[in-house]
Amino acid sequence: MPKISKKGINMPQSPIRKLVPFAEQAEKQGKTVYYLNIGQPDIKTPQIALDAVKVHSLDILAYSRSEGSENYRTKIADYYRKNDIHVTHNNIIVTTGGSEALLFAFGSIMDEEDEVIIPEPFYANYNGFSTASSVKVVPVISKIEDNFALPPIEEFEKLITPKTKAILICNPGNPTGYLYSREEIKKLAAIVKKHDLFLIADEVYREFVYDGITHYSILQESGLEEHAIVIDSVSKRYSMCGARIGYLVSKNEEVIKTALKFAQARLSPPTLAQIASEAALETPQSYFDDVIDEYVKRRNILISGLENIEGVKVAKPNGAFYCIAELPVKNSDDFARWLLESFDYENNTIMVAPAAGFYSTPGVGLNQIRIAYVLNEKSLKLAIKILDEALKVYRD
Amino acid sequence: MPKISKKGINMPQSPIRKLVPFAEQAEKQGKTVYYLNIGQPDIKTPQIALDAVKVHSLDILAYSRSEGSENYRTKIADYYRKNDIHVTHNNIIVTTGGSEALLFAFGSIMDEEDEVIIPEPFYANYNGFSTASSVKVVPVISKIEDNFALPPIEEFEKLITPKTKAILICNPGNPTGYLYSREEIKKLAAIVKKHDLFLIADEVYREFVYDGITHYSILQESGLEEHAIVIDSVSKRYSMCGARIGYLVSKNEEVIKTALKFAQARLSPPTLAQIASEAALETPQSYFDDVIDEYVKRRNILISGLENIEGVKVAKPNGAFYCIAELPVKNSDDFARWLLESFDYENNTIMVAPAAGFYSTPGVGLNQIRIAYVLNEKSLKLAIKILDEALKVYRD
Repeated sequence: MPKISKKGINMPQSPIRKLVPFAEQAEKQGKTVYYLNIGQPDIKTPQIALDAVKVHSLDILAYSRSEGSENYRTKIADYYRKNDIHVTHNNIIVTTGGSEALLFAFGSIMDEEDEVIIPEPFYANYNGFSTASSVKVVPVISKIEDNFALPPIEEFEKLITPKTKAILICNPGNPTGYLYSREEIKKLAAIVKKHDLFLIADEVYREFVYDGITHYSILQESGLEEHAIVIDSVSKRYSMCGARIGYLVSKNEEVIKTALKFAQARLSPPTLAQIASEAALETPQSYFDDVIDEYVKRRNILISGLENIEGVKVAKPNGAFYCIAELPVKNSDDFARWLLESFDYENNTIMVAPAAGFYSTPGVGLNQIRIAYVLNEKSLKLAIKILDEALKVYRD
Repeated sequence: MPKISKKGINMPQSPIRKLVPFAEQAEKQGKTVYYLNIGQPDIKTPQIALDAVKVHSLDILAYSRSEGSENYRTKIADYYRKNDIHVTHNNIIVTTGGSEALLFAFGSIMDEEDEVIIPEPFYANYNGFSTASSVKVVPVISKIEDNFALPPIEEFEKLITPKTKAILICNPGNPTGYLYSREEIKKLAAIVKKHDLFLIADEVYREFVYDGITHYSILQESGLEEHAIVIDSVSKRYSMCGARIGYLVSKNEEVIKTALKFAQARLSPPTLAQIASEAALETPQSYFDDVIDEYVKRRNILISGLENIEGVKVAKPNGAFYCIAELPVKNSDDFARWLLESFDYENNTIMVAPAAGFYSTPGVGLNQIRIAYVLNEKSLKLAIKILDEALKVYRD
C-alpha cells in the first residue's frame, strides 16, 4: 500500500472541528448542543448580498479573472478608502477566503524550512497552512494576565534567525479578541524594517472593535509599503462565511505579481460568491452599527458571566467575537469531550474549543478554552449557566 | 526590501493566461478576438443549476462541512454509480474546484522533492501546483504522431526512483483530447501496484468522449482501490467553471482522512456553488446528449479544417474539447503574440495557447498550439479561416 506523506501525517487536525463527532452523538442522544466553538456567527447576512445572487442574469457560470474583476477590486479599494486605508485595485487580489490569501502569501514569500514568528495563542489553522506550505511557525507567547497584548518586542528579536521571513499577527485577534494599539503596530513596523521581514496582518475582524477604540491597519503605517501584506475576508464582516471570498492586499508589487501566479494556477475565485460579495459592499452603515451593538452586549454578558464562575479567569476582548478563558481543569480537551459525552444541564450542553490547539508550544494553554460569542443573548446566558453547572460537577 | 521566495519566483506563469493583456490591447484597437486559448465553454449552464441559487432561502450564508454535506456527497456517489463507478459518500471530499482536489492529493501523498511522473503534454497548471507543493514533475513524452497515446510503459519504468510517489494522468486529456483505453489503464495499474505508487487520474472530462468509445475510470479497475485517486470537477461537465466545485475521490481511507485535514484547514468549499452543483446533478440526459453532439460537430469541423491548412499537423481527439496542432512556425509563442498584436483578417483575430507551456521538457512543443473548441460552429469556421490566412502571411 502506497504511503501518505510526512506532511500529510503532520497536518494538524483542526481543534475547532475535532469534537464535531461527539457533538453529533450528543444531538442523537436528544441533547441540545450550544455551539461556542466555531466562528460561524448567527448574524444575518445583509439582504442586499443574498438578493444579488437571486437576481443574477447569468446563462453561463463562467470563470472570473484570477485576481477578481477590476470592477469588484475597484469597489474594494473604495471600501478601504472609507476606512482611511489608501490602496488601488492593483494592490488587491480576490481569493477563495482569507485562507487562500494566507496560502498565497506564504507561498510568495517563504520556502521550505523558512520561519514565521506568530504571537500565540493564534488562529489554529495557521498551523495547518504552515504545514501545508512546509514552513515553520516560531511562537512568541502572549499571556492571559496581560490580556494577550503584544509580547515585549525583545522577545521577537530573540527569535529572529536567517530563516525568518515574516511576522504574522491577527488584529483584532482570533482567539484572543485583543486589538493591537497604534504603538504596538509601530513597534512591529520598526522590527520588520530593521530585519527586512514581511509583516502579515490578518485583519478580517477589522470592523469588530469595541469601546470606541479605532483599528489601526498595517497598511496605514507609512514606510511599511514594501513589508505589509494584509489578509482580509468577507466571511465575518457580512456574516458570509460560506461565500469563501477574501483578499490579499499589498503595496509591494513583487508580492502581488507573485501571488497572481498562484491565483492563475487555480483559475478563479468563485463567481457566484463574488456577485454576493460585491453587492455586500453596499450594506448600509446601520447594519454594522446594529451588529457591533449586539456583539458588545454579548461580550459584556459573557465576560461578566465567566468572571462570576469560581476559578475561571478571562481576558477582556476589545475586538472580534472570541475570548480565551482559563478553567479550573487540568485538561480542557478532556473537559470539552466530557461536556458532550457525559454531561447535560436540563438536557442541554455546550461545545467549546480546547485552546491548546491555538498554541504551538507544547503544554501551553491546556487549561484554557476559546469561546466564540456567536449566540444570541438568551442562548449565551444559558451556555454560561451550563458551563458553571458543568464545572461544579467536573471538579467533584 | 524583503525578498520573494524561490518558490514564488519559480511559479510558472499560466500559458493560457499570459497573452491576455495582448488580447485586451487588440480589442481596444477594435479587433474582434476569437478565444481558442481557454477551456471556458460557451455551452449554457443547465437551467436547473442557475435557478437553484435564485430560489435559495438562506438568511445566513454559512460555512458548509469541510468535506461537503453528506447529502450532496451521497448524491455524487449516486452519480458515480450511474457511471458504473462504485463509491460511497465517505470516499468523496468536495473541493474548491478540481484545482484544490489536486493540491490536497499532492499534499497528502508527497513531500518536498518527491516526484510525480506525468505524460506530457499535460494540463499546464500541473506545473504550478507542483511548484506550489514543492514536488518535482518528471515528464514522459507522448507524441503527436501516436495521437498522444500512452507512452510505452517501459518509459515510465525507466523514470521511477525512490522519490517517485505517483503517476498522474488526465483522461480524457487536456490538452491532447486523447482517451486512454482500458488496456492502457490496466498497464498503468500494473506499474503502480508493482512499485507501490499512487495513480492520480484527472477525470474532469469523463462525459466528453466521442465516437461511441466508453470512458474507463481508474476507480473501475479492481485491485487498484488503495492506489487510485480521482480528481473531478463540475466545471466542464455542467459548464460551471466559475462555481469552483470539484471532488477528490478515493477508496484509500488514509488518503481521505489526510485530505480532510487539508480541507478542514480551509474551512469549507463555497456554499452557493454547492447549491448550484447539487442541483446540477438533476440535469436531464438530453442536455448531455445535445452537448456531445455539439462537440463532435465542432471537433469534426476543427480537425478537418486544420488538416486542410498547408503544413499543419493535428492529432484527432476522442475526448475533451482540445486538440494539439503542430504549425509551420518556429515558435508558437511569438506567433500567438503576433496574431494579437500585428495581424487581423477583416478586423478579426484569434487567441491560441502556445503549447510549450504544456510540456515540462524544455524545447519540446515549441511549434505546437493548443486549441479549445469552445466556440460555436460559425465562429469556429471563421477562426480556422483566420489561422489559415495568418499562416500564409506569417510564413512569407
